[in-house]
Amino acid sequence: MPINQLRKDPISGRWTIVLKDDFKLEKLILNSKNIVKEPKSGICPFCETKENLTPQEIMALRKEGYPPNGDGWRVRVIPDKNPVLQIYGEINNRGIGLYDVLDGIGAHEIVIETPRHYEALADLDPDHITEVLWTYKERILDLKEDERLRYIMVHKNSGEAVGETAEHSYSFVIGSPITPKRVRDELVNSREYYQFKERCVFCDVIRQEKMTEERIIIDDGSYLAFAPFASRRPFEVWIAPQKHQTFFEQEAEIRGLAHVLKTVLSNMFKLLNKPDYTMVLHSGPNIKAGRKRGYWQTLEKDYHWHIEITPRLRSYTSFEVSAGFPVNSVAPYRAAELLRTVN
Amino acid sequence: MPINQLRKDPISGRWTIVLKDDFKLEKLILNSKNIVKEPKSGICPFCETKENLTPQEIMALRKEGYPPNGDGWRVRVIPDKNPVLQIYGEINNRGIGLYDVLDGIGAHEIVIETPRHYEALADLDPDHITEVLWTYKERILDLKEDERLRYIMVHKNSGEAVGETAEHSYSFVIGSPITPKRVRDELVNSREYYQFKERCVFCDVIRQEKMTEERIIIDDGSYLAFAPFASRRPFEVWIAPQKHQTFFEQEAEIRGLAHVLKTVLSNMFKLLNKPDYTMVLHSGPNIKAGRKRGYWQTLEKDYHWHIEITPRLRSYTSFEVSAGFPVNSVAPYRAAELLRTVN
Repeated sequence: MPINQLRKDPISGRWTIVLKDDFKLEKLILNSKNIVKEPKSGICPFCETKENLTPQEIMALRKEGYPPNGDGWRVRVIPDKNPVLQIYGEINNRGIGLYDVLDGIGAHEIVIETPRHYEALADLDPDHITEVLWTYKERILDLKEDERLRYIMVHKNSGEAVGETAEHSYSFVIGSPITPKRVRDELVNSREYYQFKERCVFCDVIRQEKMTEERIIIDDGSYLAFAPFASRRPFEVWIAPQKHQTFFEQEAEIRGLAHVLKTVLSNMFKLLNKPDYTMVLHSGPNIKAGRKRGYWQTLEKDYHWHIEITPRLRSYTSFEVSAGFPVNSVAPYRAAELLRTVN
Repeated sequence: MPINQLRKDPISGRWTIVLKDDFKLEKLILNSKNIVKEPKSGICPFCETKENLTPQEIMALRKEGYPPNGDGWRVRVIPDKNPVLQIYGEINNRGIGLYDVLDGIGAHEIVIETPRHYEALADLDPDHITEVLWTYKERILDLKEDERLRYIMVHKNSGEAVGETAEHSYSFVIGSPITPKRVRDELVNSREYYQFKERCVFCDVIRQEKMTEERIIIDDGSYLAFAPFASRRPFEVWIAPQKHQTFFEQEAEIRGLAHVLKTVLSNMFKLLNKPDYTMVLHSGPNIKAGRKRGYWQTLEKDYHWHIEITPRLRSYTSFEVSAGFPVNSVAPYRAAELLRTVN
């Protein structure tokens, strides 16, 4: 294959990216038995003054008078050096027999959140976090101009990386020609709920959580941080605007959000001893992309952007894989109580 | 909570099991950083002559004249000592505000596949594997008499367990009041495909794979073992009957299947140096359970049982979580070629 492919399994409806590169069997096997992180020595290309080790930047927030691709920045966006989805080319939507295939077209960008190596997102001051969130917003708005991309996902995988950049705080912005299944499930459910009730399901959840109170971590009047009733993982936290908003990039009041995010992450770090975690931003899809415009008819009324944060802690892996649903050993009201009161 | 709960997230439609037991924060944190398997010393309760260390058995295949719960068995089924879903009680389908909740009712059984400690499923002779498959069949048939259970899942998680039983080969049979999302997605897709084409999508896949040949690992005339076109993981293998069959437990010719399964697992072990793997049996759901009988109207025509085997090898974790779909670094035709020709 000359390019990575997106392939759809006709039985489950799931898409997979099959890589074009030849694999090394030994590498696959070695790492399956010994999950050893590579040594963290060497030079980190995400650090300030090492800009020449990365591809040309897409954008950066930088002190006045400092030229692009040099130092003096606070937040910097670069394309991934080995993108799984590449930006140039056509999607080539086609069938191979009964199978559906697209070429692996998309955006695969890295947002370097700080010029300093050991600084976590939770450590940044709220003004700096505001700039990180502003950068997400700019990238989403820009990538949504690309009609090939149906969904723009912002994702942070803290503690998962290996190699030189492992301790440097960054996130991904991924633009994809397919809406990821998790988001699509949310979109479909929200639309069905709206058809049935003529209300946004997120707004209903927020109202109910505010009434019950026991699962709320922060309520600043604009945002609600809470432990969802059916949390898949211990200490999962969602942050959503209390006013109905479909698109993060068009509507978020990011300064207030930065404060809430910092508190949630800091409390999680204190309570759980700086756990690895994932953070994902679910905004509305790219309504410019795709043929089925009718599909989005009630989107502005039925979908509500939010952030999901999940620390990676121990869980009952073998049962939950078996049973087909997650098992959560920490009741959400207890998680909220602990996250709210830690200090 | 007096009992584990199944809770539905109204936004994604996903169900989670929230455990009633109090958690130990230290345990959660400790294990998130150091994934150390517990020492494998001690006495394995799954070994022959240690039957008194397990709960009373549900069934066993045993030499004639040997009484239950003693030695002399070849395959033995016991309830899990700490079941996540318990067999006694009512489901209590109810709402808490807008949230849906069920009590954690179901079956959580362990099939001990061999009396000997270090013997892998792949090591057993085909007659013994036939008995393991026969045991799955018996347990599914029995649990399907229980109208509370919508789905019976057979699952093997080789290499994932910790503690004394870690090296002893066993599988789970789990009966659940909710159809797991992965299976439900398959059921829904298969039904939609049938409505559109009046053909079973699995039968179409099998026909196409037999025509292309490049992804086939074994074709014994009755079963097809192949690397699916959109394999989510390197060296994923599916085994399906070539003749249309909805229910494993009613229709499988298990002696032939045992031979195919042994060859697939043995080849996988040779090629990938005995990897950890999961094996899951997807049969049709329990048509006795649930109110929506109309839902299953074309089930016998549209759904086709099969086994999915997935070795756990290294992969691009952080990107794939981010992008929302799996990334597979090994093209399925290459996986099939290697699995077919290894020796």
